[in-house]
Amino acid sequence: MNNNERIDDLQINGRRIIQSPDRFCFGMDAVLLSGFAKVKKGESVLDLGTGTGILPILLDAKTEGGHFTGLEIQPESADMARRSVILNNRQDKIDIVTGDIKNALNIFGAASFDVIVTNPPYMNQNHGITNPESPKAIARHELLCSLEDVIRQTRSLLKVNGRMYMVHRPFRLPDIMELMNECGIEPKKMRFVHPYVDREPSMVLIEGVRGGNRRLTVEKPLVIYDGPGEYSEEIKRDYGF
Amino acid sequence: MNNNERIDDLQINGRRIIQSPDRFCFGMDAVLLSGFAKVKKGESVLDLGTGTGILPILLDAKTEGGHFTGLEIQPESADMARRSVILNNRQDKIDIVTGDIKNALNIFGAASFDVIVTNPPYMNQNHGITNPESPKAIARHELLCSLEDVIRQTRSLLKVNGRMYMVHRPFRLPDIMELMNECGIEPKKMRFVHPYVDREPSMVLIEGVRGGNRRLTVEKPLVIYDGPGEYSEEIKRDYGF
Repeated sequence: MNNNERIDDLQINGRRIIQSPDRFCFGMDAVLLSGFAKVKKGESVLDLGTGTGILPILLDAKTEGGHFTGLEIQPESADMARRSVILNNRQDKIDIVTGDIKNALNIFGAASFDVIVTNPPYMNQNHGITNPESPKAIARHELLCSLEDVIRQTRSLLKVNGRMYMVHRPFRLPDIMELMNECGIEPKKMRFVHPYVDREPSMVLIEGVRGGNRRLTVEKPLVIYDGPGEYSEEIKRDYGF
Repeated sequence: MNNNERIDDLQINGRRIIQSPDRFCFGMDAVLLSGFAKVKKGESVLDLGTGTGILPILLDAKTEGGHFTGLEIQPESADMARRSVILNNRQDKIDIVTGDIKNALNIFGAASFDVIVTNPPYMNQNHGITNPESPKAIARHELLCSLEDVIRQTRSLLKVNGRMYMVHRPFRLPDIMELMNECGIEPKKMRFVHPYVDREPSMVLIEGVRGGNRRLTVEKPLVIYDGPGEYSEEIKRDYGF
């Protein structure tokens, strides 16, 4: 363990993760995406921008997927992710690859995954960032890759009829829909996440299918809190909060 | 009054409308759109596909708009709308024009409205329609105009920075977003309408701005019922149900 690192229990099948509050700790967005993403038995899954590996570790615990790969550009985060995989003794099921999303097609080859998940940086307005090399800035802002990079690489890496699952901010939906359309990834399911039932959504979960037919289902709202500090029944039941 | 026509009280400022259950009666979608649409003092408003004139009549009652025009292709519906305008004595504020949406640019001229509202046919799958000339089929299915016709005409008819308000089905959002993007009408606000808070949305309300900057706000859910037969507080307060 390095400086300031800690081991957190993920509350599912005994899985644990190494995190450091100095760098970036996973948030509810990653946890909700791990519940929204559907991975079938034996499928191959890639997480674009895996950070400390939260999505492969959760998806491996929750699904019968065949193999999980996490791609991460920051060597220190990738190293933490690799150590978490060893801590959980899942080296046979999860690979962590250090590399750039913009180079993912060259790393993995075309049409090589059944499912791609991604929790990319949300912010495309990068002015006013005091430390653009900090791990938190890189995780939150489109400094090292753009939404366009993520969706174009996803299109190339997915098999035909393969599925993409993304969590993002609702205000970026016009960009997301435009890029998915350009790349032939059809939005099939969309679910908005609201902190309270009578508030604007803070997140949107999207399923896209490469080459899918055109028909979107907008699902019922996913509400996080019933009241102050009181998680909703769905969040408690499905996510163990 | 013609066969089977009736006069319904609109529960706002004494306004009334002539309808016929044989043809098509306005639904909650039109009423919700009349509350979602923002019309400022003196603005000119066009309703593309006005039917029996529900949107111009409601918007004239609810806002300080300067002038309202309803365009309707079916002569019988346009005639009923005109008689409703006279019934309400609003001939100075509301015009009903008989004509085809596909020809709207020629009828009204480019950039001639501040605001365009539309409650177009929702269904693009027109197989299995037994009577494609029935008023109900024409109101519900894209038989006489497509979503593309509506959005392309809207783009031409709106002033720069003019606003479009549309109600549609959520499953059509990929088409709506693609066409708005192609036409330079930027989605600015989106609100989903749910029959109950824990159900999929049945409608989506969209505000677009011609030449607007890119940033979408998805608003809090609009919920119709709190329980069986029990309208929600917002529906009772804002729409008089």
